[in-house]
Amino acid sequence: MIVRELHEHGSLSRSELGVRTGLTRSAIRVLIGELADLHLVNEGTSAALGTPGRPSSLVNPTPLGAVVLGMDVKVDSVDVAAVGLGGEILNQIRVERPRGRISVDRTVADLVDLVDRVWAITPGREALVGIGVAVAGLVRRSDGLVYNAPNLGWNEVPFGAQLSDALHATVPLAVANEADMAVLAEHRRGAAIQAEHVIYLSGEVGVGGGVIIDGRPLTGLAGYGGEVGHMPVNPNGIACRCGSYGCWETEIGEGALLLRAGHRPGGGQGEVDVVLEEVAAGVPEALNAVDNVGRWLGVGLAILVNVFDPEIVVLGGLLGRLHPYVLARVERELDRLALRAPRGLVRVVPSMLGTRASLLGAAELAFEPMLSDPLGWAGVRTAAIAASA
Amino acid sequence: MIVRELHEHGSLSRSELGVRTGLTRSAIRVLIGELADLHLVNEGTSAALGTPGRPSSLVNPTPLGAVVLGMDVKVDSVDVAAVGLGGEILNQIRVERPRGRISVDRTVADLVDLVDRVWAITPGREALVGIGVAVAGLVRRSDGLVYNAPNLGWNEVPFGAQLSDALHATVPLAVANEADMAVLAEHRRGAAIQAEHVIYLSGEVGVGGGVIIDGRPLTGLAGYGGEVGHMPVNPNGIACRCGSYGCWETEIGEGALLLRAGHRPGGGQGEVDVVLEEVAAGVPEALNAVDNVGRWLGVGLAILVNVFDPEIVVLGGLLGRLHPYVLARVERELDRLALRAPRGLVRVVPSMLGTRASLLGAAELAFEPMLSDPLGWAGVRTAAIAASA
Repeated sequence: MIVRELHEHGSLSRSELGVRTGLTRSAIRVLIGELADLHLVNEGTSAALGTPGRPSSLVNPTPLGAVVLGMDVKVDSVDVAAVGLGGEILNQIRVERPRGRISVDRTVADLVDLVDRVWAITPGREALVGIGVAVAGLVRRSDGLVYNAPNLGWNEVPFGAQLSDALHATVPLAVANEADMAVLAEHRRGAAIQAEHVIYLSGEVGVGGGVIIDGRPLTGLAGYGGEVGHMPVNPNGIACRCGSYGCWETEIGEGALLLRAGHRPGGGQGEVDVVLEEVAAGVPEALNAVDNVGRWLGVGLAILVNVFDPEIVVLGGLLGRLHPYVLARVERELDRLALRAPRGLVRVVPSMLGTRASLLGAAELAFEPMLSDPLGWAGVRTAAIAASA
Repeated sequence: MIVRELHEHGSLSRSELGVRTGLTRSAIRVLIGELADLHLVNEGTSAALGTPGRPSSLVNPTPLGAVVLGMDVKVDSVDVAAVGLGGEILNQIRVERPRGRISVDRTVADLVDLVDRVWAITPGREALVGIGVAVAGLVRRSDGLVYNAPNLGWNEVPFGAQLSDALHATVPLAVANEADMAVLAEHRRGAAIQAEHVIYLSGEVGVGGGVIIDGRPLTGLAGYGGEVGHMPVNPNGIACRCGSYGCWETEIGEGALLLRAGHRPGGGQGEVDVVLEEVAAGVPEALNAVDNVGRWLGVGLAILVNVFDPEIVVLGGLLGRLHPYVLARVERELDRLALRAPRGLVRVVPSMLGTRASLLGAAELAFEPMLSDPLGWAGVRTAAIAASA
């Protein structure tokens, strides 16, 4: 509990730790001693400006005491970061890749290469406790099988196993959907801190979703939960890449925006920039295209507000960029379509972590096994170091 | 943990209790002794037929050791039941009431009267540990305020407080949405036992929903979650009683079925019976009306399957009765509209508990405070009995 509190909330005084964990002063003293011996926490003083009296002693997470690798496989880039306990990014390297089908082998090789480059500039490799990978696709949590990643062209790929082998990983490696990871990061360190009921929507090429309920991530039976981008919201809608019809993504995704604005649907970020410039300049077609996104964003959010009674909806990616332009229309549709009771409780805000959200969430996922049992993990690590010495 | 296991699963051997709770044999022996002294559990033997060897000793929940009142306020009836530990219904009394607006005062008076009648024939009043009430409306969990119950004509009614006062309740009284209670009961004692990801749909006049995620009920921020009946599924749909448009309920509710089948929409159960007879007789209008319900049931379930990745969908009320007639169409729509990965994992089944589901769920809710702290509760009860003696 102590390590988790410090990891999620940063430095805390002993008395704050007591309040948060319910542990007695003496229990906290003993445990902090053990955790300090394991280099997971350290104590220091903070001389808060303007606070009279002697500086209070703070317990801090030790970033290099436990390190994870977070990875993010997006449609047009891959990222690897080493993240220390407490959430500090030690080093991050990204490579852009062309959109379109990219083989699993190529992706695994890219990630292995990035990991080597990250370790070359990062200390603390022996403190590695886990690896987390976010993928733009449907992922079975139990074994990291990517059931389907349409924008990468992957189908039923044992990605987790393949990557773990290629990395010769001796720590747990977990694979998850990118939006599920983004909502985890926004919940812990971004726009949804302190909210326990959160919906996150990402808009890249596709529209992904992640949900936090009562502070816990929604995964569903196998890990396929939260796929709100494929809710069939329009019975008269067009065919979706997923094989269905009228999915939310066909109305609020990048392709829909570009097409309605008179641009090439496959144009990517650069083409979206042009549309936003046109919106600022008042070009009617662009304004109309954005308004259509706002309308359908409101329709789908009305569904989710009635289903989840959330506190906050976080818009990421393309939808985050569109937030200022669509908010009024979204609010109007929510007023019209959502039940008054839950509607009155929800706020719609842009992402705080931006394109790094899913990478940071993957790192959070990687910390989970260690956070559930820090003392056990430290023991395993010590044994491994002794064995390799 | 022991009391909860026995309450939820019924009689268990000491060794089964050990496996389920992770407690040692000696800890279980001591705790069972304490709980037996408090009349919460008892031990007996079961001579299982055909099992060689001596009969094994079983630990049983003592029904009269802890009793709750479950109540169910439906659109055309109110129910009160006394339920004993382990889930046994000791006595249940229902009164039918005409549909339409019924005042809160009248409902409270009806419930108080039913409580008196139930206690008149039920022992164990001094073992009362909680009261749970299911209401066909949106309920704020924190204080039992009924925000909105359109079929009863209630708006922002402090129903929980009023009922608690009228009953001179000395135990916790909790109010919740009826479908949220039904899914709790189907999960613990009905069609969804052992499933941890469950969606329940009720169809009376309105369409209610209840959701279990990872074994835990979805309530949302204030308790308004799970209102799937008001998902706006049809952008070209008609006005709904809730003030919105194209809600799921306007396509799969009783009114939609009756209207499409050429019957009076307000006709109630009797009129639904006639439609089902017409379906059996092959009357085209009735077949068409049922098929339309099946189609839209599939559209909405495709949304929920993609959002929740559930293991089982339980259809209750009207939708449960329609299950055999609509299942093929529902499955076809799911094949067409839901993502293949979660779609392949879900089953759509009828309710097992029928019209008693929400009543039984309300009883389960009433047991919660006691189950969280049985020894504490037993102490409170003993003190109360001593004080009244």
